[in-house]
Amino acid sequence: MPRRPSYNRDDLIERARDVFWQQGWSGTSLKDLERILDLRPGSFYAAFGSKEALYELALDTYAQQGFERLKTLARKIGPLEALKAHPKLVITNKQNAAKACMLAKTFLELHAQKHPLAERASAHLSRMEMLFSELFQQAQAAGEIGAQHKPSGLARRYQSDLLGMRISAERNEFDAQAIAEELSANLTNL
Amino acid sequence: MPRRPSYNRDDLIERARDVFWQQGWSGTSLKDLERILDLRPGSFYAAFGSKEALYELALDTYAQQGFERLKTLARKIGPLEALKAHPKLVITNKQNAAKACMLAKTFLELHAQKHPLAERASAHLSRMEMLFSELFQQAQAAGEIGAQHKPSGLARRYQSDLLGMRISAERNEFDAQAIAEELSANLTNL
Repeated sequence: MPRRPSYNRDDLIERARDVFWQQGWSGTSLKDLERILDLRPGSFYAAFGSKEALYELALDTYAQQGFERLKTLARKIGPLEALKAHPKLVITNKQNAAKACMLAKTFLELHAQKHPLAERASAHLSRMEMLFSELFQQAQAAGEIGAQHKPSGLARRYQSDLLGMRISAERNEFDAQAIAEELSANLTNL
Repeated sequence: MPRRPSYNRDDLIERARDVFWQQGWSGTSLKDLERILDLRPGSFYAAFGSKEALYELALDTYAQQGFERLKTLARKIGPLEALKAHPKLVITNKQNAAKACMLAKTFLELHAQKHPLAERASAHLSRMEMLFSELFQQAQAAGEIGAQHKPSGLARRYQSDLLGMRISAERNEFDAQAIAEELSANLTNL
């Protein structure tokens, strides 16, 4: 295949997101990035400045897209149905570069080094948890969830279970789909 | 503090386990290991051969100790009580170098590279899941869990939720303890 440089910045960021998501921070070299983005070192630096700056853009893109996808789904099918559909969607989406969550992977890899990207991943996880909480609250207001539940508590547990399921999915997709179905069923009985 | 070389091999492996557990494979340099184990490069190679060989020993030690700890607890307080106590124990044990599971961290970091250590971590996770399954089965045989449940399904979900909780614990121990209590309470109502 002939080398065809791409100048679409968003497309480059998405390609970087996928390789970082799969291979992690340490597992992705500058050489990998230059090859995958089809950029020479000089162009890479001119476009993104550094591997860290590009990872930050990739992480933000990942988080923002996940956030918007769930919000859109909730507008379409309602908050509770969206929360029920979400677990299976995240592990069966063929466009995803990995099953495990990029935010969790980034946090786990870089947290001990106190790397700013770990903090950033954690902040994105918190923002996602707040969205889960809002959706649980809307479902409760609509009478779909018992009044005895605290939306923030439901969101905390939901996110935690999701992160676990996504690790399981990286090991065995079949098992993880069974877990996704249970997570969904659990929300029916609240 | 004066340099005092330690020649206790098990102790060295445990120290290596803790630094690998915290910092991961890529985050731990040979220099780190030589400093923490108080070994010169020559002695390090004589004792362990390579960073990879030492990681393997550290990972096996981690897995074996976790396995034995739960088995011992189950003999002491019974299978269901052990499964109920386990989530809180793993995140509150002050001797643990990190809250997240070393097997999950290793798997997530190295899986995309098809590194043998990722396979090894996954095999340890499977062995642990089988222990969970055995304990659920014993609890069911003792009438503590309804006959409609499949021990292997309970074990799969339990492990997945645990992995998620342990990531959450790395972010916020307080929240994770609330999740641990829920995981425990869920087992009461089976």
